[in-house]
Order: sequence, then C-alpha cells, then structure tokens
Amino acid sequence: MQFDGVLASVAEKKPIVHFLTNYVSANDCANVVLALGGSPIMADAIEEVEEILSLASSLVINIGTINAQTFSSMLLAGKIANQKGIPIVLDPVGAGASKFRNESVMEILESIRIDVIKANASEMSFIAQGKINTGGVDANPKDQNLDQTQIQEVARRYGCVCAVTGEIDWIIDQKESIALKHGVARLSSITGSGCMIGAMIGTFLGASEDAFCSSVAGVGLMGIAGEIADPIKGNGSFHTKILDVISASSEYIKRISVGL
Amino acid sequence: MQFDGVLASVAEKKPIVHFLTNYVSANDCANVVLALGGSPIMADAIEEVEEILSLASSLVINIGTINAQTFSSMLLAGKIANQKGIPIVLDPVGAGASKFRNESVMEILESIRIDVIKANASEMSFIAQGKINTGGVDANPKDQNLDQTQIQEVARRYGCVCAVTGEIDWIIDQKESIALKHGVARLSSITGSGCMIGAMIGTFLGASEDAFCSSVAGVGLMGIAGEIADPIKGNGSFHTKILDVISASSEYIKRISVGL
Amino acid sequence: MQFDGVLASVAEKKPIVHFLTNYVSANDCANVVLALGGSPIMADAIEEVEEILSLASSLVINIGTINAQTFSSMLLAGKIANQKGIPIVLDPVGAGASKFRNESVMEILESIRIDVIKANASEMSFIAQGKINTGGVDANPKDQNLDQTQIQEVARRYGCVCAVTGEIDWIIDQKESIALKHGVARLSSITGSGCMIGAMIGTFLGASEDAFCSSVAGVGLMGIAGEIADPIKGNGSFHTKILDVISASSEYIKRISVGL
Repeated sequence: MQFDGVLASVAEKKPIVHFLTNYVSANDCANVVLALGGSPIMADAIEEVEEILSLASSLVINIGTINAQTFSSMLLAGKIANQKGIPIVLDPVGAGASKFRNESVMEILESIRIDVIKANASEMSFIAQGKINTGGVDANPKDQNLDQTQIQEVARRYGCVCAVTGEIDWIIDQKESIALKHGVARLSSITGSGCMIGAMIGTFLGASEDAFCSSVAGVGLMGIAGEIADPIKGNGSFHTKILDVISASSEYIKRISVGL
Repeated sequence: MQFDGVLASVAEKKPIVHFLTNYVSANDCANVVLALGGSPIMADAIEEVEEILSLASSLVINIGTINAQTFSSMLLAGKIANQKGIPIVLDPVGAGASKFRNESVMEILESIRIDVIKANASEMSFIAQGKINTGGVDANPKDQNLDQTQIQEVARRYGCVCAVTGEIDWIIDQKESIALKHGVARLSSITGSGCMIGAMIGTFLGASEDAFCSSVAGVGLMGIAGEIADPIKGNGSFHTKILDVISASSEYIKRISVGL
Repeated sequence: MQFDGVLASVAEKKPIVHFLTNYVSANDCANVVLALGGSPIMADAIEEVEEILSLASSLVINIGTINAQTFSSMLLAGKIANQKGIPIVLDPVGAGASKFRNESVMEILESIRIDVIKANASEMSFIAQGKINTGGVDANPKDQNLDQTQIQEVARRYGCVCAVTGEIDWIIDQKESIALKHGVARLSSITGSGCMIGAMIGTFLGASEDAFCSSVAGVGLMGIAGEIADPIKGNGSFHTKILDVISASSEYIKRISVGL
C-alpha cells in the first residue's frame, strides 16, 4: 500500500475535515489534522452543518459526548454528506455502554452510508453482536476475542471498512483483511488516542478515495507514534511526543508494516 | 494513612469514573484518571446518565461550565448515584460567582448525599457562609481566612469530607481535620489544577471506601506534583511535568506528608 | 508603545476575563490568560452571564463552536458589557463559512459595540466585503490580498480596532494603522493559536484602556512566541514552547517591533 502517496495527497489537497465530536479530545483531534496537513473545522450547530459540509472533504462523527442536540446534527450531517458524496468516518465511542449510545450508533449505521467505522474491540463487539459493554469507553480486555469473521460481517453489512484497534489492530472490508501489530499498550493510558486515529483516517480520506488504505495509514501511524514515544517517561511527555511524531509523518509513515 | 494502599486499589479495581464536567479541563481530568489506573467516561446527556452510572465506580460533578441542561443531568446523576451507593465528588467551580451557580450548588447539596466536596477557599466560603465571591473561578486571597471551624461545620452539615485547597490545604470531616502543606503557588497558574484534584479524588474513591484518605491522596498528589515540577521554566512544560508526575504516582505518593 | 506597561497593568490589576468561547481551544485560552497574570472564567449559561460580567474586566466572544444557545448568551453578554462599560474582543472564527456564522457575526457587530475584532484575513474579508470564505476556519491564502483600506473601513464602520492576522499582521483603527512582521507560518499548524491571540488581547484590554496597544501586544506576543518556538521539532513540543514563552512575557514582550 502507498502510504506515502496518501500523505502526499493530503499535502496537495489540504482537505477540510468537518467534525461533530466530543469536547474531551477535540483539541487533540484538531491538532492531528493540522499536523498531517489538513484543516479541521469543529461545527455541530444544526443550522450550519449543511454549509460547512459544502466546504468539507470529509466528515468525522465521534459520539464521545453525544447529546440529543448533537445527535440530530450528526444524523443530518451524515445524510447530507451521503448526498454530496463526502466520505464519513464514524467513531462510536462507548457503543455498548448505554441504550442512548447504542440506539444512536445503530440509527446512524442504518440511515447513513459510512465509509469507515473506527472502533475499539468493545465498541465493535456491540455493533457486531449487540453485546453490551461493561467497560466504559475504554476497550474491555474480554472483547479482544472479537474475531475476524465478526468484523467481516459488519464490513459486509454496512459496506464499509472496519478499523478495529486493540492489541492487534484489524483493518477489514469486504475484500481484504489485514492485521497491524504496531502500537503499545500505553497508548490507552492517554485520553483521545482512539479519537485521534479517527481524525487521521478522516484526514487521509478527505484526500484519497481509498478508504482501506486511509484506515491502515491512520491506525498504523498512531501505532508507530506510540512505539517511538514509548521510551519517554511520563504521560504528559508521552502525549507531547505522540503529537511530535504525527507532525513528522512523512518521516515515519514508511515504517508502517502490514501483517502479523 | 495508607496512600500506597489506595493507589494499589486503583490498580486492582480499575475504577470507571463517570464525569459531568466542564469543557475547559475535561481532557486533563480524563488524563489524570488514566494516569492513576482508572478509566474516565465523560457523559452528560440526561438520556444516558443512569446507565453510565451502572458501569461506574464513582461520580465526579464539576460545575465549571454548567448550563441548564447539564445541571438537570447532574441532579439526576447524583440521585441515582445515591440510590446505587456510588460515591460522589462535587467540585463547585466558581460557587459564589453567580446566583445560577450558587443555587445549583445548594440544590445539589440539599438533595444529594455528597461524599467529598473539593473546593478552593472562595468556593468553600460561599458554601459555609453564603458569602459572595468576587474573584471569578480562582480563589480569592481574602478567603484564605476561611477557618477550620467553618469547614468543619460544612462537613457536619452535609456529612461529607471537605477538601479545601489554598496556601494550606485542609481535609476535614466530622472526625478528623488535617492540614497539608504540599503544593506551590504556581499550581494556580495553569488551568484545571483544581479540577484534576477532584478527578483524582474521584478515582481513588472509586477504588476505596475511605473518602477521607482518598481526599488526602488526591490533594497531596497534586501538591507533590507541583513541588516536583516547580523548577521547570514555562507554564507549558510545567503542565506537562504535572501529568508526568501523576502518571508516576506509585513513586511519588509516599512523599505525601500530613500536618503543618 | 508601552507594552511593558500593559503587561505591568495586568500584573497589578489581575483582570478577570469572561469567555464565551469554543470547546476546542478553551483550555489553551484559559492558560494564556493565567500565564499573563489574569484570571479566566468560561461561563456561557444565559442564566449567569450578567452576574459573571459584573465580576469581569473584559469579555471575549469567540464563535468557534457557536450554537443557538451560546449565540443567545453572546448577544446578551455583549449588550450587558456595553451597559457596564466592559471592553469586548470579538473573534469571529470561521466567519464567511456559513450563513449561521455570518448572520451571528453581523448581528453581534450591528447590535453590540465591540472594542477589538481579532480575525484572520478570511474572516475579516467576510466582514469587510460580505465575501464568502471557502477555506474552513483557517485563513484562505487568497484572502491575504485583503487590503489596508478595507480593514480601515471596518474599523471606521464599527468604531473598533481591527487586529488581522496573516503573513503580515495588521492592527488598524480609525487613527492608526500598523503592520507587524512577527510570527511564523508554523503557528497555523497548531489549533488555537488565533484564539489564544484573542484571549491575550482580552487580558490586556481588561487591565488597560488602550485597545490599540492591547491588540498590538496580543498579536505581537504570539508572533514572538512563534519565532522563539520555531526551531523546536514536532508540533506537540512547539505548542508547549508557545505556552512557555507566553508565561515568560515580561522577558519577551520588549521584543515586539512595530512596522515592516
């Protein structure tokens, strides 16, 4: 896969990435889009989603701190993005943790064509099996058993790419299925590492037609960043280093290695 | 007091800490919970607070950017937490600064059993005396005169622990009253240092039944972090170092020294 | 111009800066106010804006993630600030990008007396010419052609200072017009650098009657911070260094040099 090519497309196209996202990791998400060469816009007022989308190259829907108002904006944004042919990344943060989240995710998936679902194993388990998550918004170790066939079934059902993060990351669509072994457990010790992956996939997707390759690039780049930052002591410094590496992606993206 | 023990309980139990909090320091709050070994979930939609609480080990209510919607969610969350026996930390950010904040805090305190009130001296002055704060959300130096007896009276009135930060920190409940001299003035030069204390108390409280010890551990750890980070020039680097120290709590928590 | 004097006024007066702002850069904005010696309060509930303003030395209205609720609060806050004689900074983030933003900005400008409009060239182009922006919330290079006369016309129309950031920054009011060449392109690679300028202007303005000088100080200080941080590799570290420099403003503010 040509990850250099995807990154070069971002440099060339400077995609505008429209976010309907949570207030916990919004700053980090904006920063990784800029670090890759894109331009983020966080805008969730229902009055403006249509027009903001008319400027956008891609849409990222992240339900981390969803409420009734932002859910309405997400639904409308998704429908308009579909009409305009703007690709969509869905990050179903905490899916499985409440009926409100579960129904929101399912309504989004049933009524909007999503290009990439970026989820941790717990969230993907819920989507695959309707299984209730009892681990909060972080991945439940028990869900690491989620198998490839189940992910493939989700990819088939929604005609999308599934990017599932965990000890092993899986990028799966109807045709391909690859594993990535990049990354370190410590990535889950800083908030927003998953959200930033969704933001990076959204950025790549805004510049490339290849949702599968964009997903591998986003997941792989965070994994590489984690590996490079891992020797650094302290979570504050680790977080800073992650952002440093992502802003030097042209140097690091070649290191992404596909397969187990 | 066994602060090592409290921290070890967090490592073992991995408490899920449910936050209804502000958008200014939400990222920092999530990061300190993770740094201690807990799992944060920021979720304030009224539709889901009950279910999210059913996963949670503790609840943190922080009114920093409260509005009518989140206030309703806070009230409901508090009542449900009481029913389920989930301990609650209240951080009455800016109490005294507006009628809306004052009435919100008083309604929370009158209708919900709170385990720990984490406040700066200005906020605690308001709760103790109904005194109006004119210093914004930051502590007013004049309120440093708030005396122990007043804090004890609040602890007695609400049957809770009061953790009051200032030049000297006080942790007071109906039985005990201790002072902590950790910390540096500079901690008030970065936003969210108080909110992070509330987040840490919430994390400890989710793993331990001892609200008093959890409060000392949370307040003390931020103080120690401030002392260790203090030689570092620049507020950005100081902030990063605070997070570094908190993520190495097992190394530093023993340094907490109680008393003047 | 006496930038030392403006900074010394902040140290002396410790202005409380009331923000109605976005959730992406709120943490950074609070941190720069504290770094300069002021005290930030983010409060957007319509129930409390009047009372919070009665504590405040200045008001910053930033429409980055505006919605119908916060717009109502902004309008009310602006009107009350005018009545109380509290100076106002408007940061019309993304003006030109949607009818909702455009109408919100125009209604604010038509019904509230603003002291400083802090905008990038794209946003100021919209205000000057009603020109629609197609570059998201970041400045569109094409708008760098916005000329001095157009900015002067906006300053005249609204009786305010216009602080326009770009390759060359312009600070223009009805009497004066100066250019600043500080800064580096890289400042636009981290989110919130523009919002932080607005926050700094708001802080200076809360301690000084001189809106023009406050604007030059805010814009100039971010430019200097960018220059000093520029050699640092990695966007995470660059961001940290920006905050470090701003917290050492007394050392750096003298370097602001006016003119091309």
